[in-house]
Amino acid sequence: MWDRFLRACRRESVDATPVWFMRQAGRYMPEYRKLRERHTLLEICKQPDLATEVTLQPVRAHKVDAAILFADILLPLEPMGAPFEFAAGEGPRFFEPVRDRKGVEKLRVIEPREDLAYVLEAVTSIRRELDGKTPLIGFAGAPFTLASYLIEGGKSSQFSKTKSFMYGEPELWGQLMTKLSEVVRRFLLAQIEAGAQAVQVFDSWVGQLSPADYREFIQPYLRPVFAALEPTGVPVIHFGTDTSTLLELQLETGGSVIGADWRIPLDVVRARLGNGVAIQGNLDPNLLSAPRERLHAGVRAVLAAAGTAPGHIFNLGHGIFPHTPPAAVSEVTDLVHTLTSERTSHTSGGTFGT
Amino acid sequence: MWDRFLRACRRESVDATPVWFMRQAGRYMPEYRKLRERHTLLEICKQPDLATEVTLQPVRAHKVDAAILFADILLPLEPMGAPFEFAAGEGPRFFEPVRDRKGVEKLRVIEPREDLAYVLEAVTSIRRELDGKTPLIGFAGAPFTLASYLIEGGKSSQFSKTKSFMYGEPELWGQLMTKLSEVVRRFLLAQIEAGAQAVQVFDSWVGQLSPADYREFIQPYLRPVFAALEPTGVPVIHFGTDTSTLLELQLETGGSVIGADWRIPLDVVRARLGNGVAIQGNLDPNLLSAPRERLHAGVRAVLAAAGTAPGHIFNLGHGIFPHTPPAAVSEVTDLVHTLTSERTSHTSGGTFGT
Repeated sequence: MWDRFLRACRRESVDATPVWFMRQAGRYMPEYRKLRERHTLLEICKQPDLATEVTLQPVRAHKVDAAILFADILLPLEPMGAPFEFAAGEGPRFFEPVRDRKGVEKLRVIEPREDLAYVLEAVTSIRRELDGKTPLIGFAGAPFTLASYLIEGGKSSQFSKTKSFMYGEPELWGQLMTKLSEVVRRFLLAQIEAGAQAVQVFDSWVGQLSPADYREFIQPYLRPVFAALEPTGVPVIHFGTDTSTLLELQLETGGSVIGADWRIPLDVVRARLGNGVAIQGNLDPNLLSAPRERLHAGVRAVLAAAGTAPGHIFNLGHGIFPHTPPAAVSEVTDLVHTLTSERTSHTSGGTFGT
Repeated sequence: MWDRFLRACRRESVDATPVWFMRQAGRYMPEYRKLRERHTLLEICKQPDLATEVTLQPVRAHKVDAAILFADILLPLEPMGAPFEFAAGEGPRFFEPVRDRKGVEKLRVIEPREDLAYVLEAVTSIRRELDGKTPLIGFAGAPFTLASYLIEGGKSSQFSKTKSFMYGEPELWGQLMTKLSEVVRRFLLAQIEAGAQAVQVFDSWVGQLSPADYREFIQPYLRPVFAALEPTGVPVIHFGTDTSTLLELQLETGGSVIGADWRIPLDVVRARLGNGVAIQGNLDPNLLSAPRERLHAGVRAVLAAAGTAPGHIFNLGHGIFPHTPPAAVSEVTDLVHTLTSERTSHTSGGTFGT
């Protein structure tokens, strides 16, 4: 069933639970590492033929039910006026972190059709190559997660500079988030127009905030993004990590699928969010490197917690690590398909016990 | 009321909500930084007169209701056979991370009365100096958090090596955790014997685990620690960050006070854990650097969520950052005392609205 993933997003019945993996294209794959010998990460993102090739690698190697555009959540920030580099082994580094009014005012609300044309060309090219056999997911970073990189100047563990900015200059924070929100809105709409059949909003670091802060500093700027996507009818996945205390607020903010990390069992997610939304997740990515029996038990536990109601997309709780054995990715994909198609044919949940 | 903190731990009535701060002694204080010009962190820990001085600094500077021993959770690991250094600005670095059977077998179950005598001397010396005016909290890192440092070789963000070890070698993991558990048990009992009037167990990074993993890999080794402390009658604070999905399991594991980070409002903690346990927390430490009005609103919100039932100890959701202004620490202490003593005298919760 080619559209198993899209059907699950819409909470329609499926022949087996769909599977894809965050960061399913990337450093854990030998095919990708080979390409990286000759090209930087940004070169691959910016050349539609290379981005297409890398997007397709995991679709060829594993029986995943969706392709996800190879890109980086930070790409829109460069044309906005905040260039960065990927320092070897250290993640992104912004040359001029945004710390004051001048920094915020300098940021340009870009037009993705012009400023990120290479991403949209990749979307169209990937769709052509996939030829209707596998749906394509587009994506963008959420305003908070993007703001945190801009303000910290890179990855952070305490998010102190971001929170200082937010608490100290709430009006300026609003300006920054409004600009980012508008860019994310435009970018996701443009990806859908170019052919993305679903999109994921990565609010990867929003779980650093208390519910009260989420309501005040995030929701007003994130809601318009989801509201703008709704009329397209395209499934929208709303993902974050560490969000156990934010789930209801995230649902209220928007999205047809809520993604959760491995910290919260999916039966708890389901009980808290109800049946009006699909859920995605949530194997601990570290389990992909565990012994076979342990990995299988982990997969079974996720499926058992997800239950048999329609609307579960199997995924990890966060992205694949570079040290992951590719064989484990294939194995999990096959195992989920086997276990859940058995379930469909026998209408029995008995094989799912953990 | 000198024993306000101890009374709150026992859920007895108090004249005002007690306040202390994780990392209340340390780099944010000019007095401490001055001492650090002449001594390393480990030197201060190992010289009881210096450890006493640093422990007392925040008690003199702020009206906190408890002193906490100045030490480091990693101290027991050195005599166990795993020496480390604090690399400038990078946190601890173990010279030989524990990765295999040989590494685990090499670890010695120490006798803190001999191997960590300097800590116990500091406890006695601090008690003498405090002279019954302020209670003293002792502490230790929990087995998981210590194991993660041993295995990763330092601080980590993904805990991949720790989880690989745990999933891949569950029997060896059990041996490691059993050794750490026994050391932590002995160490905390020795601190109580030396004069600690309460102890805190820092399972700072346990929130990286799913509830199922917590039950399998943590609880069996952590439970004996709490069980051994119970007969002493001394209050035991059980603290971790990112524990929103683990709270009930932590309560089951032990402790008379449960500490939570800022991600989960204390009314939710209270509703989930019931009234049979005291709760500690949970201001976002980043708020200490926020404008006055924002900081005050944050403090009021914590107090409102904690409610008026006995058994709340005001604290941060994690340790004070080095960039924190000391004046904010005094201000929060005074504000909590003022707001909650007003409450006691007027028996009205009206001033707590946020």
